Amino acid sequence: MTDQQRVAVLQEPERMTVETRPVPTPGTGEVQVAVRAVSVCGSDVHYYDHGRIGGFVMHAPLVLGHETSGVVSAVGEGVEEPAVGTRVAVEPQRNCGRCEQCARGRYHLCPWIAFFATPPVDGSFAQYVVVPAVRAHPVPEALSDDAAAMIEPLAVAVHAAGKADIGPGARVFVSGAGPVGLLCLQVAKARGAAHVSVSDPVARRRDKAREFGADTVLDPAEAGEVGPTDVVLECTGVQAAIDLAVAATTPAATVVLVGTGAEVTLPLDLVQSRELVLKGTFRYAHVYPAAIALAASGAVRLDAMVTSHHDLDGAEDALLAARRDPEAIKAVVRP
Amino acid sequence: MTDQQRVAVLQEPERMTVETRPVPTPGTGEVQVAVRAVSVCGSDVHYYDHGRIGGFVMHAPLVLGHETSGVVSAVGEGVEEPAVGTRVAVEPQRNCGRCEQCARGRYHLCPWIAFFATPPVDGSFAQYVVVPAVRAHPVPEALSDDAAAMIEPLAVAVHAAGKADIGPGARVFVSGAGPVGLLCLQVAKARGAAHVSVSDPVARRRDKAREFGADTVLDPAEAGEVGPTDVVLECTGVQAAIDLAVAATTPAATVVLVGTGAEVTLPLDLVQSRELVLKGTFRYAHVYPAAIALAASGAVRLDAMVTSHHDLDGAEDALLAARRDPEAIKAVVRP
Amino acid sequence: MTDQQRVAVLQEPERMTVETRPVPTPGTGEVQVAVRAVSVCGSDVHYYDHGRIGGFVMHAPLVLGHETSGVVSAVGEGVEEPAVGTRVAVEPQRNCGRCEQCARGRYHLCPWIAFFATPPVDGSFAQYVVVPAVRAHPVPEALSDDAAAMIEPLAVAVHAAGKADIGPGARVFVSGAGPVGLLCLQVAKARGAAHVSVSDPVARRRDKAREFGADTVLDPAEAGEVGPTDVVLECTGVQAAIDLAVAATTPAATVVLVGTGAEVTLPLDLVQSRELVLKGTFRYAHVYPAAIALAASGAVRLDAMVTSHHDLDGAEDALLAARRDPEAIKAVVRP
Amino acid sequence: MTDQQRVAVLQEPERMTVETRPVPTPGTGEVQVAVRAVSVCGSDVHYYDHGRIGGFVMHAPLVLGHETSGVVSAVGEGVEEPAVGTRVAVEPQRNCGRCEQCARGRYHLCPWIAFFATPPVDGSFAQYVVVPAVRAHPVPEALSDDAAAMIEPLAVAVHAAGKADIGPGARVFVSGAGPVGLLCLQVAKARGAAHVSVSDPVARRRDKAREFGADTVLDPAEAGEVGPTDVVLECTGVQAAIDLAVAATTPAATVVLVGTGAEVTLPLDLVQSRELVLKGTFRYAHVYPAAIALAASGAVRLDAMVTSHHDLDGAEDALLAARRDPEAIKAVVRP
Repeated sequence: MTDQQRVAVLQEPERMTVETRPVPTPGTGEVQVAVRAVSVCGSDVHYYDHGRIGGFVMHAPLVLGHETSGVVSAVGEGVEEPAVGTRVAVEPQRNCGRCEQCARGRYHLCPWIAFFATPPVDGSFAQYVVVPAVRAHPVPEALSDDAAAMIEPLAVAVHAAGKADIGPGARVFVSGAGPVGLLCLQVAKARGAAHVSVSDPVARRRDKAREFGADTVLDPAEAGEVGPTDVVLECTGVQAAIDLAVAATTPAATVVLVGTGAEVTLPLDLVQSRELVLKGTFRYAHVYPAAIALAASGAVRLDAMVTSHHDLDGAEDALLAARRDPEAIKAVVRP
Repeated sequence: MTDQQRVAVLQEPERMTVETRPVPTPGTGEVQVAVRAVSVCGSDVHYYDHGRIGGFVMHAPLVLGHETSGVVSAVGEGVEEPAVGTRVAVEPQRNCGRCEQCARGRYHLCPWIAFFATPPVDGSFAQYVVVPAVRAHPVPEALSDDAAAMIEPLAVAVHAAGKADIGPGARVFVSGAGPVGLLCLQVAKARGAAHVSVSDPVARRRDKAREFGADTVLDPAEAGEVGPTDVVLECTGVQAAIDLAVAATTPAATVVLVGTGAEVTLPLDLVQSRELVLKGTFRYAHVYPAAIALAASGAVRLDAMVTSHHDLDGAEDALLAARRDPEAIKAVVRP
Repeated sequence: MTDQQRVAVLQEPERMTVETRPVPTPGTGEVQVAVRAVSVCGSDVHYYDHGRIGGFVMHAPLVLGHETSGVVSAVGEGVEEPAVGTRVAVEPQRNCGRCEQCARGRYHLCPWIAFFATPPVDGSFAQYVVVPAVRAHPVPEALSDDAAAMIEPLAVAVHAAGKADIGPGARVFVSGAGPVGLLCLQVAKARGAAHVSVSDPVARRRDKAREFGADTVLDPAEAGEVGPTDVVLECTGVQAAIDLAVAATTPAATVVLVGTGAEVTLPLDLVQSRELVLKGTFRYAHVYPAAIALAASGAVRLDAMVTSHHDLDGAEDALLAARRDPEAIKAVVRP
Repeated sequence: MTDQQRVAVLQEPERMTVETRPVPTPGTGEVQVAVRAVSVCGSDVHYYDHGRIGGFVMHAPLVLGHETSGVVSAVGEGVEEPAVGTRVAVEPQRNCGRCEQCARGRYHLCPWIAFFATPPVDGSFAQYVVVPAVRAHPVPEALSDDAAAMIEPLAVAVHAAGKADIGPGARVFVSGAGPVGLLCLQVAKARGAAHVSVSDPVARRRDKAREFGADTVLDPAEAGEVGPTDVVLECTGVQAAIDLAVAATTPAATVVLVGTGAEVTLPLDLVQSRELVLKGTFRYAHVYPAAIALAASGAVRLDAMVTSHHDLDGAEDALLAARRDPEAIKAVVRP
C-alpha cells in the first residue's frame, strides 16, 4: 500500500481541486478505512456554495464528505474489532470522552466534538480516513456500499424519530421531502406509524414520498389538508412549513425540529393551549446499529435514493448535482 | 328484526347449551352490534374447563366470548357514530367514567370495569351485543370479520409492546409462541425491532413464530441461546420461562409481564445489578385504532392465525379445538 | 338561605357594577360553594383593562374571578363528598368528559372546557358558585381562606414544574418574579432543586424572590449571570426574557413556557445544537391535591403573597391594586 | 509527607488488623485523598461477619470502608480540579470508560466497575486513597466530614428515589427504617412527597423515622394501615416487607427495589391488574452533586444519623457497633 492518497479539497467556495496527501495512520483504538462510497449531503453543498454554515466558517481549505462507507484497511493498537477487511459504515464524529455530556451518554453534544467536513475537521472525499474503532460499524453483505454510506443520514432520521416516540397508531406529518424527510418518512413507517403525511412544494419530491410509502402527500402551496397530527418531523427549517406543521398538531403533540435554520417563530398561544412539546435534534448518538438493521431488513430503502455516481475527480460534479438536476436526490462519490 | 336471539351459554364447566334470549336494546350512547365473528381466547377455554380464573369465579351461567367483530345494527340516543351498517371491532369493556383511574385516562384499570365473559358479565357468543358507542371501532374493508375479531388479542400485544418502548435497534425476546406471543412478535417487528427471538417448547408453535417473522426461535428444553435482550415480552407466566427471559436481559432492559399466573419469583440480585424494569400489563386502553391500523396495513397478519371455523351451535367445539388439535391456534365462532 | 346573591360584574372594560342575581342551584354531581376568598389574577386585570385576552373576547357582561375558596353550602343529587360545611379550594374548570382529551386524562385540554371568568363563562366574584363535586377540593384547617383561593395559581406552578421533572440537583432558572414566577420558584425548591435563579426587572419583585428562597436573583437589564441551567420556567412571555433564558440552557435542558403571549422566536440553531426540549403548559390537571399538600406542609408559602384585602364592592379596587401600587402582589376579594 | 500509611485490614471474617502499607500515588487524571471520615455500611458489616455478599467473595485480606470523605492531598498529571486542599466526598467507583454501559452514561452498570471494599478492590479504612479526579466531589464548608462521608448512602437514596419520579402529591411508602430507609424518607420529602409512611419492626427505628419527618410510621407486626401508595421504596429485601409494600400500591404505582436479597416473589396477578412497575436499583450514577446540594441545604440531615465515632484502631468496634447497640445507626471511623 502506498503512503500517499488522492483527496478532493474545497479550496474556497466553488473551487475544488484534487490533491495528493499522506494516508493517515490509525493510532491507539483507531482504524483506517479505505473509502468506498461517500454520499453528498446538503451541508456539503452549502459549504461548497457559501464556505460556511451559520457559525461554522471555513478559514482554510476543507475536505468535504461525511456520509461514508468503506473497508477497514488497517487497525491501531488495542483494536480487536472491526478487523481488517470488514465492511463498515463510518460514524463521522469523535468526542472527547471526558466531559459531562460524554459521561451522560450524550456524546454527540460533547462541546469538543470533531465532526467530518465541519471546519476545521476534514471529511471523507478521500481514499482513506481514520476514525475511532467504535465509530466504524460493521455492515452485512445485504447492504451496498452506497447504502452503507447513507446510514449516516438515516441515523439522523432514526435519532429524530426516536425523540418523538412514534409507534403504532401515530399520525405523523413529515414536513419536507428532501433526503432527510424521505428517510424520516420511512423510519416513521418502520416504527409502525398509522398514517404519514408528507408535504413538499416540489412535485418530483412528492412523487418520491409517495413511492417511499407516504399515506398522503401535500403541496403546501395548495389548500391541502394535513390531517390531525400527533408527531411532526419538521425537515425544512422554513418558517412557512413550520407554521403549517404546528397548525396541524393535536393536543399534546410532539414537534421534532430537524431542518436547520437561524431562528423559528412559534405561535405561543397555540403551543400552550395544546401543550405541545418541541424538541431540537442534533445529528445522532448510539443509533448506527439501529439504522444498519433497518436498512438491512429492507424496512428502509436507501439505494433507491441514489440518482448519480461520481469518482473522486467528479466530486465537484456530485456537489453540483442538485443544482443542475432538480430530480437529483443523492449523488454518491466513489473514491 | 326479531327481538329474540340465540346465545351459547356455559351452564357449568364443560357444559354448554344454546338458548334463546331477548336481543338487547342500546341505551343512550350505546350501539347494538350484530355479531359476525368471535375468536376464542385461552381465557374462554379456562372458564370452560375450570369455571374460574383466579379470583374470577362463575356463580351462574355465563356467556363466553370477548374477541368480537360485527356490524352496527342499531344505535341508542345521542349516538352519531358509528352509524348503523358500520363494520366494527368491539372493545369488550365498559368503565365507570367517574373514578380516579378513568379521570387519569387509565380506563382499563377502573375498579368498576365490566369486561365481556368475565363473571358476572356475559360475552359475545351471541347474535347481538350492546356496547358503548366509543367501544365499537370502525374497521376498513381490508379487514375480514375474523381479523376484526382478533383486533382484541392484537390490542393486548400493542399495549404490552407499547410499555417497552420498542423501536429500531431493539433486541426483543418473546417468551412463548401462543396466540398472544405470536402477536407480540409481529408488533415488535412492526415497531422496527432489529431482532426478535421467540421461545416455545412446542415445535409447531416455533414453526409459526418463524412464519410470522421471528429472527431466531428456541426450544427452551435445549441449550439455546436467547442472545442479548433489551426487551422481554413474557407471554407464558411460567416460572422457568421467566427465569430464562430474565437471564437473557442486558443492563437497563425492560421485562413486560404479559402471561398470567399466580406469582412469579425473580432473582433480586440480578434485577438490581442490571437495573431491570419489570412492568405488569393488563388488557389495554386507547389502542384499538392502532391495532386496526397495523392489521389493515398488513404489518400484522391476523387471518393466518385462524385454524378453524364454527357456528354458534359449534361454540363448544371451538372451545375444545385447542384440546383436540395441538396444531390449533385460533378457532373462530361465526354466529 | 336567601335565593338572591350579590355579584360583581364587569359591564365593559374599566366599568364594574355590583348586581343582584339568583343563587345557582347544584345539579346532579355538583356542589354549591359559599365563596370566602377570591384572589386576583393577571388575567382578571387584563379583561378589566382590555375586555379580551387573545382570542377570548367579552361580548357581554362578565363576572371575573377564578382563584376561589369557600365552604360547601349545598350539594346536588348523588354527591357524597365533599359534604356541606367542608372548606374547599375550587378548581374552576368543567370538562365534557366524553372527548378524546378527557378519555386520555388530559381534561384541561378538552375542547369544550368551561373555565371561570373566560368569556362567556362567569367567574367567582360572587357569593355563591356551583361546580362539579370533583372540582371542589377539601383543604385542611392549616390553610387560610386566602391560601385556599391561591391554590389555583399554585396549581399552575405545580403543573408547569411537573413538566420539567425537576428534582435534586436541578439548576433551575425562573424567568419573571410575578405571582406565578414566585410560585414556580417555591415549587422548584419544594421539588429539591439545587439552585434556583430568578430574574425580574423590578427590584421589589427581586426582593420577594429572595424572600421566597431564590438562590440568585438577577436584573435582566444588568450584565447578570444566570448560570448553567437545566430547567427554565419562563413566566413572562416576553421575547427578551425568553432569549436570556434559552441562552442560559445547558445541553438537553427543558424550557417550560408558562408566560403567555402571541408568539415567541427561538434561535433554532441553539435549540438543535443543545437538543433543547420546549414545552407549552396550559392551566393544570390532576394537581389540586398536590398543591394543597405543598401549601399545607409549609413548603410553599401563600399567605405571604397577599398585599391587600377587599370586599365585593371593592372588587374593582382589587383589580386596580397592581396598577396603583407597584409593590402589590396579590389582592384578595372576600365576598 | 511520609510514604507509609496505616490501614485497617479484614484478614478473614471477624479478624481485623491494622497494617502499614505504602501511600498510593495518583496517576494521570487521579487524585490522592487524605481520608477524614468513613461511615460504616451494612455491607462492610456483612463482609466482616461472613466474608462475602452473594457472589462477591473475599479470597484475600480486604480493606473495608467505602463511605468516604477527605481532603485532596495530591493530584496526578492533567488534573486541574479538585485542587490540593479541597474537601471532598469520594464516589468510590471506577468504571472502564469504554464499554457500552459507559458510552450510554450508565457508568455504574459497567461490567468492569471497581468499587471500594468489594473483593478484590480495597476500600478506605486507610489514611490515603487514590480515586479518579471526577469521582472526588468538592463539598461546601456547611458539610461536616461525617456528612461528607455519608453522601455515599445518600447517593443511593437519591438514585433510588429518582427512579420513581417522586414529586408533589406523591404518596410514598418507605419499607424499612435502617440508614438507607431513613435517607430515602428524607429524599422523598425533599422531592415534595405529600405523604411518606415508613414501616419497621424496631421501635427505635420507627422513632427515628418520625424524627426525620415520616408522616406515618408502622410496625409491620401490627395490623397497621399503609394507606394508598403511589411509590414504594423497598429498603429491606425481606419477602414479608415486599408483600406488605406491593399490597399497598395503587394502580400504576412504582416499586423501587432498594433492599438486597437473593430473590423476591411477587403476586403476578396483582402486578398485572394494577399495572405495577418494578425497578431494580444499583448504587448510583451522576448523583453526587445532587446529594451534596440536598445535604448542604439542610433538606436532608446526615449528622443526626451518627451514633458513634472511632479511630482507625477502632475500626473493628465501628463494625461491631450495630451488633452491640441496637440503637446504633451510623458508626464513623476517622483515620
